[in-house]
Amino acid sequence: MTPAATVPDILRECGQKGIKRAIIQSAGFREYSESGLQLENELNEIAAEYNMRFIGPNGIGAINMENGLCLPFIKFKKFIKKGDVSIITQSGGVGLSSINLMTNEGIGLNKMVSVGNMVNTNAEDVLEYLIEDPGTKTIFLYLEGLRDGRRLMEIAKRSLKPILAFKSNIGVLGQKIAASHTASITSDDSVVDTAFEQAGIIRIHDGTALASNLKTLELPPMKGRNLAIISRSGGHAIMAADACEIYGFNLVELSESFLKDIEKHFKASVIKLTNPLDLGDLFDLKVYAQIIEQTLQLKEVDGIVLLHTAFSDEENEASRELLKGLVESVKKYNKPVTYFLASSAEEVSYLKQNFDFPIFTRVVETIRALEINHKNYLSHEDLKLVDKIPSFNADKEKVRDLIEVAKSENRDLLLSEAIEVLECYGIPAVKSAIACNVEELKEAAEKIGYPIAFKVIAEAISHKSDIGGVQLNIRNAKGAESAYNVMMEKIFKVYPDAVIDGVLVQPMVNSGHEIIVGGRQDEQFGPVVVVGLGGIFVEIFKESEVRVAPITKVAAINMVESLRGYQILKGSRGHKPYDVESLVDAILKISQLLVDFPEIAELDINPLRVLHEGQGCLALDGRIILN
Amino acid sequence: MTPAATVPDILRECGQKGIKRAIIQSAGFREYSESGLQLENELNEIAAEYNMRFIGPNGIGAINMENGLCLPFIKFKKFIKKGDVSIITQSGGVGLSSINLMTNEGIGLNKMVSVGNMVNTNAEDVLEYLIEDPGTKTIFLYLEGLRDGRRLMEIAKRSLKPILAFKSNIGVLGQKIAASHTASITSDDSVVDTAFEQAGIIRIHDGTALASNLKTLELPPMKGRNLAIISRSGGHAIMAADACEIYGFNLVELSESFLKDIEKHFKASVIKLTNPLDLGDLFDLKVYAQIIEQTLQLKEVDGIVLLHTAFSDEENEASRELLKGLVESVKKYNKPVTYFLASSAEEVSYLKQNFDFPIFTRVVETIRALEINHKNYLSHEDLKLVDKIPSFNADKEKVRDLIEVAKSENRDLLLSEAIEVLECYGIPAVKSAIACNVEELKEAAEKIGYPIAFKVIAEAISHKSDIGGVQLNIRNAKGAESAYNVMMEKIFKVYPDAVIDGVLVQPMVNSGHEIIVGGRQDEQFGPVVVVGLGGIFVEIFKESEVRVAPITKVAAINMVESLRGYQILKGSRGHKPYDVESLVDAILKISQLLVDFPEIAELDINPLRVLHEGQGCLALDGRIILN
Repeated sequence: MTPAATVPDILRECGQKGIKRAIIQSAGFREYSESGLQLENELNEIAAEYNMRFIGPNGIGAINMENGLCLPFIKFKKFIKKGDVSIITQSGGVGLSSINLMTNEGIGLNKMVSVGNMVNTNAEDVLEYLIEDPGTKTIFLYLEGLRDGRRLMEIAKRSLKPILAFKSNIGVLGQKIAASHTASITSDDSVVDTAFEQAGIIRIHDGTALASNLKTLELPPMKGRNLAIISRSGGHAIMAADACEIYGFNLVELSESFLKDIEKHFKASVIKLTNPLDLGDLFDLKVYAQIIEQTLQLKEVDGIVLLHTAFSDEENEASRELLKGLVESVKKYNKPVTYFLASSAEEVSYLKQNFDFPIFTRVVETIRALEINHKNYLSHEDLKLVDKIPSFNADKEKVRDLIEVAKSENRDLLLSEAIEVLECYGIPAVKSAIACNVEELKEAAEKIGYPIAFKVIAEAISHKSDIGGVQLNIRNAKGAESAYNVMMEKIFKVYPDAVIDGVLVQPMVNSGHEIIVGGRQDEQFGPVVVVGLGGIFVEIFKESEVRVAPITKVAAINMVESLRGYQILKGSRGHKPYDVESLVDAILKISQLLVDFPEIAELDINPLRVLHEGQGCLALDGRIILN
Repeated sequence: MTPAATVPDILRECGQKGIKRAIIQSAGFREYSESGLQLENELNEIAAEYNMRFIGPNGIGAINMENGLCLPFIKFKKFIKKGDVSIITQSGGVGLSSINLMTNEGIGLNKMVSVGNMVNTNAEDVLEYLIEDPGTKTIFLYLEGLRDGRRLMEIAKRSLKPILAFKSNIGVLGQKIAASHTASITSDDSVVDTAFEQAGIIRIHDGTALASNLKTLELPPMKGRNLAIISRSGGHAIMAADACEIYGFNLVELSESFLKDIEKHFKASVIKLTNPLDLGDLFDLKVYAQIIEQTLQLKEVDGIVLLHTAFSDEENEASRELLKGLVESVKKYNKPVTYFLASSAEEVSYLKQNFDFPIFTRVVETIRALEINHKNYLSHEDLKLVDKIPSFNADKEKVRDLIEVAKSENRDLLLSEAIEVLECYGIPAVKSAIACNVEELKEAAEKIGYPIAFKVIAEAISHKSDIGGVQLNIRNAKGAESAYNVMMEKIFKVYPDAVIDGVLVQPMVNSGHEIIVGGRQDEQFGPVVVVGLGGIFVEIFKESEVRVAPITKVAAINMVESLRGYQILKGSRGHKPYDVESLVDAILKISQLLVDFPEIAELDINPLRVLHEGQGCLALDGRIILN
């Protein structure tokens, strides 16, 4: 408990004594002030000098339930239970309250590391340790920022253990200002979403609701989406069925003979049997256990939601027996059952402390938990598939030259250069020529063939079409001349001092569907590739999909199919389908380009015209911004 | 506890004895079988004969904590606390588990009515009673279906008490098949959403998570969206700030002088002060109380989220004192504070039972609860405004005639008749003529003036454009003739037996933005009016807004502004704005038309072309389906 200013000297003394590991809990470093940041740098230097490693500062240290190490400077009301969940947290408070939540829910801790400012040891370092740590079965990660997103992904992909992450701080990160379209339609937080998914990390959005999720991850995997709901209350059954609809689970149809078998147990026969199975008519809980076992035996059932209500004390014993049987059945049939109980707080608490099994007190969460369990299963299955990143031949030398020239002139790539880069990577682009005056324009148009379109080339002008900088559908030399004059007049009205490098002349392309493809360098995850519907869709609806590059073909197809407008591309209501194959190809090539050239900060093809099936696609405009 | 078949005789005996009120808990009626439905009808007849009223069947009866009546056939573990929340529930199980939840959270019950099959007394009847009932302050409604949505709305609008409703069964209702576009883009559940909102009913989506919401509704109203977050843990503060971003609350900037005042209490000064206010540096909880009071005094603060952590037993006393002070401050300043506590389950439980104040154990829910509180405040303010439903002159006689003729011929309205109906209500539509052969077509085109468009009129053909039934941009007589022949050839290929009533000839309109306006009769709420973006937007994105008719001008404007594509209409990125005023006018007229003629089952104007500002709008196509 020593102030920040005193820490460097103390650390040095430790070094001199030959101490190799330190945990620094003091605050008042980078998170507080400029001079605090300097103190932090000093700590790193001292650590290097004495070959030390340290955790912190601005954390609450570490807990290891295996050897009894417990460093947080706060007393707990209850002993922490030893178990197999380990926590990495950037906030001491969240770490402690996570342990508190786990204790309340009867979930045991294995290790906790409060990484604080992550100066010498960051979250990725600790994660790398925990995925190999024999005592840890499940990992919970609380992060406010990331140091090295790519490394986090790489480590997580290697993990056979479920990793649950709560990444906060979505707002501040989302506020960055972007120069290109692709950058503006992908917040940093959407990159976090996709990066976690690509790495098999399960992202949750309320760190204080994690407890039941942790327990559900230790249930057997939900391998498919076929669910049976068994409920003592018809109302709870309907709530669960609604949640199934929202989360996309199927309520399997149960066979006549199966239902008849169950009806035999009923006395009054006043409830119609179906799935959800409303057992409101049944008062012997031993029969419940039989029905659950019978249902688990069904091949078509991947998992069960059991909604139990027990309001009378006299049922406690039978209820607990039911749960005991349930725990065994789950093990025996290796299928998950999420168990909701409406009962007194005391009874729920007793069960949580005495059964190593998730007890839910909210209906919707039983379904959400199965969704998380299923997602975890799927992503580990996906990661098992060795799906190679495709590689394309590209004229890298030429691209390198174009970038070098632009860099030496301290500018971004020109429109024509950007088109050249795309062509070097085999992305079809319209034939184009540059013209610096009306005569050159007419000459170029003659070569390309009317009708043509032309656009101004000028660094300072971003949204060209808004100020008349794009002229379409020019049919002859006379039209070209007047369009050129109109364009220049308009531009100089808005930008009197514009430096114009000429106009880019292209053939007029009317067919195809407008798509935007591009990417950018993300601060935390490196190159990301983006696809979206062009035109109004990108401007107003910001419909897009993003992935951390490089990506596999399966991932590129998934990006396209995930677009809300995919129906248009595949040909809706009798319209001809578009060439999705060529779009997928273009995405993969952009993915490779961004990985090959980290100098490219942002890249836009807007639009890429995707023609009808079999006819490929065509980049009409390109924009490459260097960093 | 008597079987369904015996109930009619027993009810009759009651009638004969002069008993006027009955509660029937037996099941096995409509919900079970056809013969059960007959038994239900018999019950109603008996009740009419003896002038009785009854509740049920298929419910668990009623509880009245004021006079000790408690009819459910299930024993509770704990005594139910008497309080001021009353429950109306269609499911006995949900009713009981709601009471159980409330008991666990220390929330008192006033009355509970399990309305079951709602044969003689429905949820609306009970609601009408409760909104006047002096013992009831807050009402919770659990519904699986609705009998009379309009009456529910009317009663709720009169209520000065908050009504929280959980309406389940979203899936089954959403599966209905619709003939028109407007019907297909508005699920019945979206109508429930808007109807509840229009009536000031707060809809929640997990009946098992209602407890903290109930308590928050009894806090003072959150009158604005300006929030201060006070937290003992930086991590919790960030989580709450993220949730603020999602729910759209503002974190007000706290003044320098205010923050300096607070910093005086700090010993170490290692935390930067801002909003969220991270008080991790402060260990004296009395100072917390002072800071909360100071913050509540700020005019710019509408409410506070307090995120407290207390892990050590030694802090219990001080923590409870803090809460006591908080309860008083909330009363004194009449502003809401939601209080999150990370502590042992025992301590949380103690506070819930001993403080009549909401205790949250999840950070995100502190924000969500304030959102619910704020929404409740706003909707009661809205309902106070007497905003009149506008009324338009319309040629109702003519509309009545058109509908009568169609009805007598057992068909829906023809395209041309639908257009006439719109014109009767003052909705501008393109001038049109009907032609039955090529000669008539050319004649009509001459009158209207080229360029023209024409569409086939044929009852059996729904999506006309898909089979060549729409011909656009015809410039002269020759073009008209060949287009007509092509159209007929295509149609007879797909529909060899099509009965074609002719073609509707219209001038070609290229300008304006395509909007779809229409409505339908909802089974539960009667006429609803719908607006959406036309073309691809309605087909692929299903972007639309729906309201229960009739609506006010404010509501019509709100519908348009709520569309995700509203930016396009108001003129985005330098484009000219469209005539939103005329669109609002058309929506209001459709609203009136649907209320005037309940015979209209579905109505589509697809598209309504909204022209540039000042130029109005124009219906290009109309479709009216009768019931």
